[in-house]
Amino acid sequence: MFKRVLIANRGEIAVRAIRACRELGLKTVAIYSEADKNSLHVELADEAICIGPPDPSKSYLDIPRIMSALEVSKADAVYPGYGFLSENPKFAEIVEKSGAKFIGPRSEVLAKIGDKVLAKKVAKEVGLPLVPGSDEPLEFSEAVKLASKIGYPVVIKAAAGGGGRGIRIIRDEKELREKFPLAKKEAESAFGDGRLYIEKYVINPKHIEFQVIADEHGNVYVLGERECSIQRRHQKLIEEAPSVSVSEEKRKEISEKVAEFCKRLGYTSAGTVEFLMDEEGNFYFMEMNGRIQVEHPVTEMVTGVDIVKLQLIAAMGEEIKLEKVETNGFAIEFRINAEDPVTFIPSPGQVEKLILPGGPGVRVDTHLYQGYTVPPYYDSLLAKIIVWGNTRQEAIARGKRALGELKIEGKGLKVNTEFHLRVLDQKEFIEGKHDITFVERIMV
Amino acid sequence: MFKRVLIANRGEIAVRAIRACRELGLKTVAIYSEADKNSLHVELADEAICIGPPDPSKSYLDIPRIMSALEVSKADAVYPGYGFLSENPKFAEIVEKSGAKFIGPRSEVLAKIGDKVLAKKVAKEVGLPLVPGSDEPLEFSEAVKLASKIGYPVVIKAAAGGGGRGIRIIRDEKELREKFPLAKKEAESAFGDGRLYIEKYVINPKHIEFQVIADEHGNVYVLGERECSIQRRHQKLIEEAPSVSVSEEKRKEISEKVAEFCKRLGYTSAGTVEFLMDEEGNFYFMEMNGRIQVEHPVTEMVTGVDIVKLQLIAAMGEEIKLEKVETNGFAIEFRINAEDPVTFIPSPGQVEKLILPGGPGVRVDTHLYQGYTVPPYYDSLLAKIIVWGNTRQEAIARGKRALGELKIEGKGLKVNTEFHLRVLDQKEFIEGKHDITFVERIMV
Repeated sequence: MFKRVLIANRGEIAVRAIRACRELGLKTVAIYSEADKNSLHVELADEAICIGPPDPSKSYLDIPRIMSALEVSKADAVYPGYGFLSENPKFAEIVEKSGAKFIGPRSEVLAKIGDKVLAKKVAKEVGLPLVPGSDEPLEFSEAVKLASKIGYPVVIKAAAGGGGRGIRIIRDEKELREKFPLAKKEAESAFGDGRLYIEKYVINPKHIEFQVIADEHGNVYVLGERECSIQRRHQKLIEEAPSVSVSEEKRKEISEKVAEFCKRLGYTSAGTVEFLMDEEGNFYFMEMNGRIQVEHPVTEMVTGVDIVKLQLIAAMGEEIKLEKVETNGFAIEFRINAEDPVTFIPSPGQVEKLILPGGPGVRVDTHLYQGYTVPPYYDSLLAKIIVWGNTRQEAIARGKRALGELKIEGKGLKVNTEFHLRVLDQKEFIEGKHDITFVERIMV
Repeated sequence: MFKRVLIANRGEIAVRAIRACRELGLKTVAIYSEADKNSLHVELADEAICIGPPDPSKSYLDIPRIMSALEVSKADAVYPGYGFLSENPKFAEIVEKSGAKFIGPRSEVLAKIGDKVLAKKVAKEVGLPLVPGSDEPLEFSEAVKLASKIGYPVVIKAAAGGGGRGIRIIRDEKELREKFPLAKKEAESAFGDGRLYIEKYVINPKHIEFQVIADEHGNVYVLGERECSIQRRHQKLIEEAPSVSVSEEKRKEISEKVAEFCKRLGYTSAGTVEFLMDEEGNFYFMEMNGRIQVEHPVTEMVTGVDIVKLQLIAAMGEEIKLEKVETNGFAIEFRINAEDPVTFIPSPGQVEKLILPGGPGVRVDTHLYQGYTVPPYYDSLLAKIIVWGNTRQEAIARGKRALGELKIEGKGLKVNTEFHLRVLDQKEFIEGKHDITFVERIMV
């Protein structure tokens, strides 16, 4: 059991974590960079410690500084959030060794799922379908052979990549010859790990992911799926739960295998197993993310489960007891980013006028307040507007209504509200037929 | 069918109505007094018409001015909200005769439920239990006889009263002799109707009310009950759904009778049937309110039903088709009023800092924004914070968390957040044993 949680993050997810802690009666310690001293997570936490300059490598990514804050604050647990150090097994291990609780999977489990080759091996063992490709990292000559066997297009992926980083699409052997050595070099410099594998490129797939929450007593609950096909350059922009394209039968089949996958890994805490789904409804395992995801609220809205609270409860060693998890209605999340809605260029600045939507079926997760200055150093995510409806159609109508109410204005500050409103008017989206190429094909 | 709705109200309920209209693709016309020109409902509506000076009798209560706005704007429906003219049968009738649709019960039905004596007669016919007392208005000598028969304490009520107005508690015959003539005079001057009736005073009751939505095709749906026992001087401050004190059996019994009651009245639109519940769980019919209630969101949160949207749909003459209405979890609403949390003295002023709570299970209905000046002329309700939890305990924890995040600050502006936080710490409330005397006994 712990009593005082250090939130090793910033922005909306730090606010989200503080909310969950407060509802459980846990004290919170915020850490912040000098750029974030006026941030909402600093104001809401019971205590706040400045850990360094704006540069994330000297603050939110700086393990020694965070460990000092942990020691000084006498916090006995660390909530990592997403991004920054959240999936860094070394950080998790250092926290574990300090005697504090890392609120996430154990460091060795994080290491396992971070190794894509290993993760795919376990997925295969439990019967989760994989994209045809190499089980192991391979050298150039093997890659050429395999690619001609499974057929082009193929993708090259870095074993240590993730979140869309280290991925290249290859249309033919000529391109493979050209790009393979480049990809290897890039992976070496970006991740310190040059291993590559290749796999078949699934054409026009949907991005479907399953939310998991597991305790330390062997209980693994799968909270249904989310569809996150509205992406730009592998960055999700709109997510929904459930997916209209997943049949009840398929949902059940994949959920059971996902639970088995987590059990084999000894997985605890919240996690997400990501898939591509092709036009015929076939699933292909991609990877597991060992952290809370930005888009977790859509699952919360359709299940009534508070995933972040369950992460805390699981980390305390308590047993999670959920009755049969049923989903109710449809939820859609819109990521409001500080960027031009057309050019997508980041645009930080001061929030001079703020009106957040409210009323029925609307949830807002944000660290904004009127007067706040959005710093240019971090992620451009300003707010998540999440809407719920009895039907997907109602959720879409509510989304339009809520986005229409949203005002985030200030000199130089641009947000992508218009982008979302445009998506909601597209027939393909309304019909639920959109895939991960939607933004490139239609919106740019 | 109509396409353009005039919102004959202000504040948060005007914002609420605009939201519902927008989700259904209906255009909205706001009306406003000179004191409300910078109000959110004016900003959100498609069109806004100033109808007069701040004095409500010359604006929001002025039927000719509102009818002019209706004509000028070419709106073809009127949404009355609560308070002001919402339950005025004459207003409803004038709207009906103009050819526009009054979004509420028909004027003659409004008139029927506004006559408490008549309403009680119908309630009795369908088997809804009444507080022992007079079925008809009575004169002084009859009152003395009846009171000694049913036993003191009794209450004197004005036939035309409502919302706690025109009510006096009488402990013995001496007090009855003293107060009856005074009450008669008061009723005459306040309501233009001096008829009084008396009934047994139910000791330490809970306030329980059932939400109804009915269409013009004879479908009446009862959406469960709300408990609104946290009141001060008959003004509700905290409401919840469902009530922990109502058994499933009782809920079913009363729901069926409430549906029958509405059918006999030819009731359409949303309405609320109010009861007192004594310590043994016996129900006593009080009255029906023929309008949306301030506290409707708690029912929306546990049922997923959008009551205001259904009011619009019913008014369009469409059939409402709801599957079996089930409630899920617990919702609590906190009315944030511009008043001193201890003395309850109203305190309007400018909102210089505003932070509204968000995150999981939190809904906010408000017309506030940072920079808005709360005018002194109207109702002190600034915002409704509504929280949902899987259990009542979770809803309470979330309520504390959400209220803790709320900041409404400004020179001279006081809000009653502290009051709510104090209620949430009381054992009696936590155990659900509070009744309508709670605030007087414990909080003042």
